[in-house]
Amino acid sequence: MSRVWNFSAGPAALPQAVLERAQREMLDWNGSGASVMEQSHRGKRFIEMAARTEADLRSLLTVSADYAVLFLQGGATQQFAQIPMNLAGDGDSADYIVSGHWSAKAVAEAAPYVQVNTAASSQKDDFLKLPPRDGWQLDPRAAYVHYTPNETIHGVEFHDIPDVGTVPLVADMSSNILSEPLDVSRFGLIYAGAQKNIGPSGLVVMIIRRDLLQRAGRPMAKIFRYAEQAANDSMLNTPNTWGWYVAGLTFQWLHAQGGLTVMAERNRAKAALLYQAIDGSDGYYSNPIELSARSRMNVRFTLHDSALDAAFLAESEAAGLMALKGHKALGGMRASLYNAVPLEAVQALTAFMQDFARRHG
Amino acid sequence: MSRVWNFSAGPAALPQAVLERAQREMLDWNGSGASVMEQSHRGKRFIEMAARTEADLRSLLTVSADYAVLFLQGGATQQFAQIPMNLAGDGDSADYIVSGHWSAKAVAEAAPYVQVNTAASSQKDDFLKLPPRDGWQLDPRAAYVHYTPNETIHGVEFHDIPDVGTVPLVADMSSNILSEPLDVSRFGLIYAGAQKNIGPSGLVVMIIRRDLLQRAGRPMAKIFRYAEQAANDSMLNTPNTWGWYVAGLTFQWLHAQGGLTVMAERNRAKAALLYQAIDGSDGYYSNPIELSARSRMNVRFTLHDSALDAAFLAESEAAGLMALKGHKALGGMRASLYNAVPLEAVQALTAFMQDFARRHG
Repeated sequence: MSRVWNFSAGPAALPQAVLERAQREMLDWNGSGASVMEQSHRGKRFIEMAARTEADLRSLLTVSADYAVLFLQGGATQQFAQIPMNLAGDGDSADYIVSGHWSAKAVAEAAPYVQVNTAASSQKDDFLKLPPRDGWQLDPRAAYVHYTPNETIHGVEFHDIPDVGTVPLVADMSSNILSEPLDVSRFGLIYAGAQKNIGPSGLVVMIIRRDLLQRAGRPMAKIFRYAEQAANDSMLNTPNTWGWYVAGLTFQWLHAQGGLTVMAERNRAKAALLYQAIDGSDGYYSNPIELSARSRMNVRFTLHDSALDAAFLAESEAAGLMALKGHKALGGMRASLYNAVPLEAVQALTAFMQDFARRHG
Repeated sequence: MSRVWNFSAGPAALPQAVLERAQREMLDWNGSGASVMEQSHRGKRFIEMAARTEADLRSLLTVSADYAVLFLQGGATQQFAQIPMNLAGDGDSADYIVSGHWSAKAVAEAAPYVQVNTAASSQKDDFLKLPPRDGWQLDPRAAYVHYTPNETIHGVEFHDIPDVGTVPLVADMSSNILSEPLDVSRFGLIYAGAQKNIGPSGLVVMIIRRDLLQRAGRPMAKIFRYAEQAANDSMLNTPNTWGWYVAGLTFQWLHAQGGLTVMAERNRAKAALLYQAIDGSDGYYSNPIELSARSRMNVRFTLHDSALDAAFLAESEAAGLMALKGHKALGGMRASLYNAVPLEAVQALTAFMQDFARRHG
């Protein structure tokens, strides 16, 4: 079949131009006579590509020399554990803001390595809003403050960077990195699983302030230590070379689109169009999130009658709209609108939604 | 340029048929209208592919139901740490056989998590031979015995599975898995970074006897616990979906070749041809490894005069023979002859070597 409009929450849509280039270069990358997958990561060609990819990310996000950029493995979930292993010493505590599924998971995976202080949580509100900043119980002696700027499953997003004083702010940006310009200098550590806005799964991109690399953390194998990875250009062992390569193609594509200011405009327009279709449906569709906390990346919606869900999913798939089923914990629908999802996809979705409502009354 | 003969030690050559299929399916995999990289790992299509890939590996190696098969991340190096984290409790010791660079690295990364007993080492022989089995100082109370059946850098290989009694035998088979039939029942745990004989880097395949999943190990995040990954079909978090897919294509290719008996014959023939070219060169080329310990996968050789190394590398590359430079720790040359390297590649290499020797006297 031809290409569909892909609203998957992750692994998610990639830019078609990126896929086409990866396809062209599959058997003979960069004049080498071999695939990028068949290259030693110690070889000149790979090292040049890896360095260019880092440079392209740095220029997209205006990352200063005060920060190291790492290309790691294990997904954001492994970083839930590695972050306290690296940043917290014996007896240290860390503050966590719980605003949905993923920040709660970050707490659970950190617990063996640091004393977790849940400084704020919106669980009692079913994560339909964000914990108001003035209620956060922050500890000025905390090793760091961890939060999740966008919750992929719950569909809530922080639209400002919280001020947490001098304690390093750590952010899991898996589902909204590169969706708009970012003031990196406000953060101690930013990390993101690649499979939403960067590239294929199996790669984690991390931006870490260099002073944090000096923290002793706890006794552990070298492979887990960010300072070791930074000292070895993320090649302490063989990295995910394919993931690194596709990430590089995506960064080049983002530059070609005009950078993150352009992407931010597109992302705002896409989300606005879909939320308008939901809000303007006279209750046929609805989104439960507090207006100020709505995610631009992951838009939840329910049908007024859940008995129609199966028909909605079957008909949307037949119409070339892929992966609209909501997360199993919440039901309903979800459309993820990452960078690689064009406005046309959202136009096709909203047209389908209006048509579906008319036909199913 | 056209495809070269690729002797990279890893990431290494992949079967051309696998690359061609991945290329064809890049934009529209399995009739989905999207790339395999753009699929949710929770989706029906991906889960079916993942299950088939596991089944194909099980049939290639005749893996019984007593073993779980895991698809993990982080490379073999991360497993150097995770294995003691999972298999050794507080106060436990484990026996390690050190036969080269990688088994020594396994010791270093395990040390924070288990009391390491180096039961045997061939370091005093510069790893030119294997530590003789009758000298191993094994502890019958050890949590496990770890060894490296093939040392990618040093070019030595065990040609028999050592008998270690009832203590679980753990093997890093990164560079020789699937190169010949294997009696999996002799092992407690087999693991392999994919980037040599399986697929792209960023994926680790593990075969673990189910009783070992019951070991408590030490307190740690769930993401590091093999039992959790086994209970979740290696999808406790988003796996390396591309790596899993390419591994599946490779397993299908191995079945199409006739399975591991056929691959073993080819691998023997390839290694024999290259070692004959070295041994029959009247000392122009030489391999320093004890005959009984020579690796079929990674063939080291030096030129009689290292002043010729640069010319050898430049001319071989110009002749379409890629990645023959030896590891920087050892110098000289190395040709890796994994499954995806055909006999024709070795024929081209030996012809070049003879021609080079004639021309450079």
